[in-house]
Amino acid sequence: MADITETTPGWLAPDELELTRARMPILYVDAVPVRVDDSGEVTHIGLLLRIGPDGKVSRALVSGRVLHHERVRDALLRHLEKDLGPVALPRVPASPQPFTIAEYFPTQGITPYHDPRQHAVSLAYIVPVAGDCRPRQDALDLVWFSPQEASSPLVQQEMPGGQGVLLKQALAHVGCLS
Amino acid sequence: MADITETTPGWLAPDELELTRARMPILYVDAVPVRVDDSGEVTHIGLLLRIGPDGKVSRALVSGRVLHHERVRDALLRHLEKDLGPVALPRVPASPQPFTIAEYFPTQGITPYHDPRQHAVSLAYIVPVAGDCRPRQDALDLVWFSPQEASSPLVQQEMPGGQGVLLKQALAHVGCLS
Amino acid sequence: MADITETTPGWLAPDELELTRARMPILYVDAVPVRVDDSGEVTHIGLLLRIGPDGKVSRALVSGRVLHHERVRDALLRHLEKDLGPVALPRVPASPQPFTIAEYFPTQGITPYHDPRQHAVSLAYIVPVAGDCRPRQDALDLVWFSPQEASSPLVQQEMPGGQGVLLKQALAHVGCLS
Amino acid sequence: MADITETTPGWLAPDELELTRARMPILYVDAVPVRVDDSGEVTHIGLLLRIGPDGKVSRALVSGRVLHHERVRDALLRHLEKDLGPVALPRVPASPQPFTIAEYFPTQGITPYHDPRQHAVSLAYIVPVAGDCRPRQDALDLVWFSPQEASSPLVQQEMPGGQGVLLKQALAHVGCLS
Repeated sequence: MADITETTPGWLAPDELELTRARMPILYVDAVPVRVDDSGEVTHIGLLLRIGPDGKVSRALVSGRVLHHERVRDALLRHLEKDLGPVALPRVPASPQPFTIAEYFPTQGITPYHDPRQHAVSLAYIVPVAGDCRPRQDALDLVWFSPQEASSPLVQQEMPGGQGVLLKQALAHVGCLS
Repeated sequence: MADITETTPGWLAPDELELTRARMPILYVDAVPVRVDDSGEVTHIGLLLRIGPDGKVSRALVSGRVLHHERVRDALLRHLEKDLGPVALPRVPASPQPFTIAEYFPTQGITPYHDPRQHAVSLAYIVPVAGDCRPRQDALDLVWFSPQEASSPLVQQEMPGGQGVLLKQALAHVGCLS
Repeated sequence: MADITETTPGWLAPDELELTRARMPILYVDAVPVRVDDSGEVTHIGLLLRIGPDGKVSRALVSGRVLHHERVRDALLRHLEKDLGPVALPRVPASPQPFTIAEYFPTQGITPYHDPRQHAVSLAYIVPVAGDCRPRQDALDLVWFSPQEASSPLVQQEMPGGQGVLLKQALAHVGCLS
Repeated sequence: MADITETTPGWLAPDELELTRARMPILYVDAVPVRVDDSGEVTHIGLLLRIGPDGKVSRALVSGRVLHHERVRDALLRHLEKDLGPVALPRVPASPQPFTIAEYFPTQGITPYHDPRQHAVSLAYIVPVAGDCRPRQDALDLVWFSPQEASSPLVQQEMPGGQGVLLKQALAHVGCLS
C-alpha cells in the first residue's frame, strides 16, 4: 500500500486518524485497473508510477480508505477517479465479493502485506477501465503492462508493501499468471 | 435450461449428439444478463420470453453448449449474440471463475436443476449488457426486471428446469436478493 | 448483526469505541455455521437463539469485530469459540475470499443490512462445524435448521438487521437455496 | 493433466470415448490436496509423484473425468479416493463454486493448459485432507510441499500440461503465493 495522503476530506481529523490507526484495523479497498479485449480477457494491467523523495521509483495499485457511511463500491469509484482521472470509465464489478482480502500489518511477516503506518484490511477488486487515464495527485504516470511484464521480477520489486503479491493474485484470478 | 435448438454448426451430427447426451455430462454456460448503474450495482435482470406450442409462457437465461475447441468466454459471447443480437455489448467477466455451477440432471430431485434431455453441467456467469438487445431465434422478447420482480414467485414459476433458482443465486451473488 | 457485547478485551475503551464508531467503518466478520455430509454438501445451518429484554425471540449468525493486529481468520476462530464453545471444531476456510461483503449502515435502506450502532463492513464466511456446540455468552441455544427451514419466512423474520438476507446469500452460495 | 487411465468403469467404451474426445469438451475436476492448520491456513500442498516409461519424474494434481449422472462433488470424492486412498479424509468444499476453470486444449498456446488427448474443461477445487494418504494406481507417492516449494521453478517444471500454473492459481487463491 503506497504512501498515499488522503486529500478527500474524511470524518477524522489527522491526529484522530493517527490515534485510531493504532487501535483498530482500518478498512481499505485495492483496485487492480485492467484493460480487457472484446471477450473480457485481460490484456494489460495499469500501475501507478511514483518517484519518492530519494528518487526511488515505485509502482502501486489504486488503493485507499473506505470512509464512514460510504459504500465499498463508492469508495472504489472515488479512489479510481482520484488516481486515474475523471474519464477513465472504470467498471466496478457487479458482485461485492472481492477476489481476495489483503491484510496489511504494521509488523512484517504475519502476511505477505505490510504497512508500517497501520493495520489495514483491504477488499481487493479487479476493475476493467475503458477510458482515458490521466493520473492525478502524487502519481507521475499510469503505465500499462502485459500480464507477463506485471509478474516479472523487475516490476515486482518496484511494488512495496506486498502489492506485487496482490497483483500476482489478481493475475491468477483472471487466469493470466504464467 | 430452455429447449434451445443449436443453430450454430457444431462438431456433432444430431444423432451423435443424442448418443453422447446419454453417455457423458455435457458442458454448458449460463449467462444472467444484467443492467448496471455507474457504480456497477445491478438495477435490472434480462430474461428471454418464450411461448411454447401449448401457448405457455416461459422465461429463460441465456444458455447453451460449449463446443469442441471453443473457449468458455467465446461460448458465452456466441450464445449472448445469438440470443440478444449483435449490438448488446455484453461485458464477459475478466475472471473465468463462475459464480456457481448448475448441475442439470435428467432425473429430478438430485439438484435444484433439471433437464429431461441430458446431464448438463453449466458454468454460470453474470454478464453486464450495455447495448441494445434484440432477441433473435425462438425468443419473442427480452424483458428487463428489477431484482425484486426477478425473485418474485410470479417470475420464478415461469422459469423451468431450476433456472429460477439459478437466477436467485445470481441475485444473491450481486447482493440484490431481498 | 445482533446486539453483542464484546467481552474479549479490545484495544479501545468503551467511550473510544463509541467515538470511533461515529467516524469510521468498523471491520466485522460474519460466520454461517453449517453441518456438512461426507460429500461436503450442507445439511444444516446453525443459528444462535437469543431472547431480548422484551421477551422477543431473535436468531443470529456468529458475528463480531476484528481487533487491531488480529488476522481475519483468528477473529473468526475467536468469535466461533465465544459463541459455539471450545469443542465446536470449526473449519475456517482455506481461502480468505469471503462469499460476500455485508455492509451494515446505521441508516436503513442503503443496503439490505442495518446496524443502528454503527457503519460495519463484514466479511462473510461459511464455516463447517464438526464438533459439539455449546453456546455461551448471551445466547440461549444454537438451533440447527435444514436449508429449507433457514430460508423460510418464519426464520427470516426472526433475524434482525438483514442477517436473514445474508443467510440466504450463504445458502445460494452453497447451492442450497430453493 | 497427467496421463491417467480411468479404471472406474465409465459409461463409454474406450473407442467411444476416443470418438467423443474429438468432438466435445470433456468435463473434468482438478483437486489440489492441502494440509491446513487449526486456523484453516494452508501449510502444505500434496502432489502425486509419477515416473514415466522414460524414467522422467512428473508431479500432478488429483484429476479426472466427471461421469454421466455423477455429481461434481461425487466425482471429486471418487478421484480423491482413487489417488489418495480410502482414509485420506478429504473435505470437499461446501460451495460448488470452483476457484477457477482450467481449459485444457489439444492445441498449445490458447490457454496455459494443454492436453494432447482432448479438449477438457476442468472445475478446480482446493481440498483440505486430514487423514493418511496412500497413493494407489499409477502414482508412486504423494509428496507434501510447503507453499514456497510448490511454486518454485524446480517443482513447476515437473508439472506438465499447465498444472504448475493451476497450482500457482490455487496458492494465490488461498493467499500463499509469494
